[in-house]
Amino acid sequence: MPRWVKEIKPAPPSLDDHSGDLDRLKRSLHQECGLEQVCVDLETIQSLPAMIRDSAYRLRLALFQDREKTFITGMDPAGSTKPVLGLAVDLGTTRYVLQLVDLETGAVLASADHGNPQSRIGPDILTRIHHAGQKGGTQELQTMLIQDLQAGIEKLCRENGLDHRRISNLALAGNTAMTHLFLGLDTRWLIREPYVPVLNDPGLCRASEIGLDLGPLAAVYCFPNAGSYFGGDLFAGILDAGLDESNEISLLVDVGTNAEVVLGNKDWLIGCAGAAGPALEGGVSEIGKPAGPGIIERVGIDAQTLEFNLQTISNQPPLGICGSGFIDLAAGLFICGLLDARGKFVTDKDPERFVKREGQDCLVLVQASQSGNGQDLLIGQAEIDSLIRSKAAMYTILETLTASVGLTFEQVDRFCVAGTFGQYIDPESAISIGMLPDLPLEIFHTLGNSSLGGATRLLQEPESLDIVSRTRDRMTYLELNVNQEFMNEFSAARFLPHTDRNRFPSVVRKLKTRN
Amino acid sequence: MPRWVKEIKPAPPSLDDHSGDLDRLKRSLHQECGLEQVCVDLETIQSLPAMIRDSAYRLRLALFQDREKTFITGMDPAGSTKPVLGLAVDLGTTRYVLQLVDLETGAVLASADHGNPQSRIGPDILTRIHHAGQKGGTQELQTMLIQDLQAGIEKLCRENGLDHRRISNLALAGNTAMTHLFLGLDTRWLIREPYVPVLNDPGLCRASEIGLDLGPLAAVYCFPNAGSYFGGDLFAGILDAGLDESNEISLLVDVGTNAEVVLGNKDWLIGCAGAAGPALEGGVSEIGKPAGPGIIERVGIDAQTLEFNLQTISNQPPLGICGSGFIDLAAGLFICGLLDARGKFVTDKDPERFVKREGQDCLVLVQASQSGNGQDLLIGQAEIDSLIRSKAAMYTILETLTASVGLTFEQVDRFCVAGTFGQYIDPESAISIGMLPDLPLEIFHTLGNSSLGGATRLLQEPESLDIVSRTRDRMTYLELNVNQEFMNEFSAARFLPHTDRNRFPSVVRKLKTRN
Repeated sequence: MPRWVKEIKPAPPSLDDHSGDLDRLKRSLHQECGLEQVCVDLETIQSLPAMIRDSAYRLRLALFQDREKTFITGMDPAGSTKPVLGLAVDLGTTRYVLQLVDLETGAVLASADHGNPQSRIGPDILTRIHHAGQKGGTQELQTMLIQDLQAGIEKLCRENGLDHRRISNLALAGNTAMTHLFLGLDTRWLIREPYVPVLNDPGLCRASEIGLDLGPLAAVYCFPNAGSYFGGDLFAGILDAGLDESNEISLLVDVGTNAEVVLGNKDWLIGCAGAAGPALEGGVSEIGKPAGPGIIERVGIDAQTLEFNLQTISNQPPLGICGSGFIDLAAGLFICGLLDARGKFVTDKDPERFVKREGQDCLVLVQASQSGNGQDLLIGQAEIDSLIRSKAAMYTILETLTASVGLTFEQVDRFCVAGTFGQYIDPESAISIGMLPDLPLEIFHTLGNSSLGGATRLLQEPESLDIVSRTRDRMTYLELNVNQEFMNEFSAARFLPHTDRNRFPSVVRKLKTRN
Repeated sequence: MPRWVKEIKPAPPSLDDHSGDLDRLKRSLHQECGLEQVCVDLETIQSLPAMIRDSAYRLRLALFQDREKTFITGMDPAGSTKPVLGLAVDLGTTRYVLQLVDLETGAVLASADHGNPQSRIGPDILTRIHHAGQKGGTQELQTMLIQDLQAGIEKLCRENGLDHRRISNLALAGNTAMTHLFLGLDTRWLIREPYVPVLNDPGLCRASEIGLDLGPLAAVYCFPNAGSYFGGDLFAGILDAGLDESNEISLLVDVGTNAEVVLGNKDWLIGCAGAAGPALEGGVSEIGKPAGPGIIERVGIDAQTLEFNLQTISNQPPLGICGSGFIDLAAGLFICGLLDARGKFVTDKDPERFVKREGQDCLVLVQASQSGNGQDLLIGQAEIDSLIRSKAAMYTILETLTASVGLTFEQVDRFCVAGTFGQYIDPESAISIGMLPDLPLEIFHTLGNSSLGGATRLLQEPESLDIVSRTRDRMTYLELNVNQEFMNEFSAARFLPHTDRNRFPSVVRKLKTRN
């Protein structure tokens, strides 16, 4: 399998061939690797004459490309036993994940995740963008991030007996704002009409240009974005899901801070992203707590006995509930009749389960005696309402996107759910509340961190660069205008599972079985 | 006339055009300037969003190109009154010359010349290359040069009320070794068989990469070389002489530390360079002293009275003689019979003119009473012998090159003499001693510093970049093997003007007039 590491044999000079060392290297790259426009920086050229002579004119090069140019990112004598490392980075607003890859074999060597240090400035992107707009703010945010990344990278390498100076290729996937801040680019215009990024295709730059201390020739590739709300994380996800490589029609939903949705196959791709206007403020993932020990991730409710079966992370006494558990809970409550079609608690069905707090009905999910912190774990009606808005937004976005190309959900062959929030969602529960369409469970696939997966694949398979470029060129971006039609759809989706129950036959069947 | 400075009007963003600021800049460069592969570095991109909005989407860019890529080297709002400066550098082994150019108008603003600081390591290239081969030697020589250049550039700007940080484009022409040392490249292999340079086409790099502090985006273009002995200074000279742009057959002779000769026209070019092997050791310009006050630059001898007429620089009392004066002197001595055809003094023709020193005949050029330092100014037979070897080398090189393409001197339409030494030579004198062929005086042109001239033209006319590239591609390099035929020619040329006097009819006519 082709890799970013290549062995080449530039011709030795002779009295008949006076061309320079660099000329012979470039000729070799052309003849042996088919490469034309290779950028060899001065530092490489300075070390070239001694290196090619010491290595008897056999070199092992690390290469990295974007759609315009090829960089030499590492150079050793052929046969060197030193590893050539790649680093995949999923740069999220809240957390980032690092993954080390052996560029010769493609093997994943180690990974680690960390909180995004910019959270100190603000947990959400908007706060950071406002901060970046102040004098020196962009650089402050960039420096904060780069220093944390550098420390994280060095720690990960150290713990695995590796040298961070052997990292030659870094592939980074992040949303548009995070990618801008990583590169030290002005984010102000992302949130002001007409909402344009500084660039859509950062391509390659030298790691040293952004202050990262990796291999001396290391280069950084940032996945492209298509506008302010459709980021590199999603292009990495499309690569990871192989959306662009199949005849099958796939839907990819990345449920992170925003919902980002792509529909298509190898012939066409259409995507949309973002909370669709103020009506949907809060996005789709506001509910629940981050995963952690004692957090409820699975909920089952026995439709006959109304008994709750809770599963916590690490089997610790319950402290809270995360998104996937919350969706399970709402689905269970609805199927067993404790939530009505409007999403309101049916308190008289099991009065002992409910209390009033500040005039609001609350479900006692866990009693104080059994919780991890000695307090009742309550779910308020307002939180359920928020979930309903979120699920309605998600369904409406899926519906709008699918309808925009004249398709129905039934024509979708594969439904990929990715993202930090999405990867734990039980599709059956999500269908029960009408968040995801009522399709056969076997077509749902959870991808996990598809942004990291795509970045990793780019380091493993040089051809994937073409896939990303092609994807970006072929992507149609659907602007989710919150028009009357969208709002009508949204309103209809604010019922459980939907005002039009015919769309959810499996849910209707379940409801019929309840007592 | 096209310049390296362009005004462009990138489209403002709109709700219908979500493309990024950089995308719109690149589109504008493509549509308005026909440029494709533009390298915009991260620093430019970082300043772009504020700049295009503050300038109402009208920018003045400084551009610079090599055969592979285009760099943005400066960016201002359109209409800025700040100058955009270029700097031409002729980097010689002994001296370097700086020349500031206004990149908008093409006007030459100021110039200055300085000694090459590497002379502290060794006056000649070989000593420096040996020094560079020691640990840290290359970097030491580079740093020495760059620091001196930086100081020289800042001084030149300061004296002319200009800011060196407004320099965006630097064009440098130097011989292969000097260009290598400027870029910090290994020179060891230039002087070892098979004599290959590290590179033949340095193209563009960022000024900061080589430690020069100019404009923040400034780029440096180094003229290409064709092997170890045919340097960028000569390609700059070809550009300056317009050799490549005419149907006329031209000969360009650059007499500097080496003799470098190019013959050709717009259809073909052939060149050779360097002292042709150990037989010609000492090159062609060893004779005489550097120009300066009191140095004799012109000599006339009255063939009737044998009276000497000396002209010194600044009309100061004579202290020495420079190359052009020395050639005049040798020509005069020969024409009036004080030198014979073997180049030996004819002391009995004017005994008072000669003295013996350490067994050697010496000509008293200036008596102590009239010299600038109170001593006799003597010219020894050995110095004349050295000049004869030099002139024989020059003539043989010209003869060999011309014959190699089946031409005779009479078919040459234009004869350009360039270089620090060459620019003051009187062609008539040079013909008299058989250094230059006996052609009509009107076809001789002295170009002055053609290396600086070419570098300056590159800053004034972007099209000249293509000329340089084309020249380099079309140049045939003639290896001057010191074979028997060459040595025979050389031996024949060691007479005044030549063993074959039929080649020098104008000299024969002069000789007939002497008493």
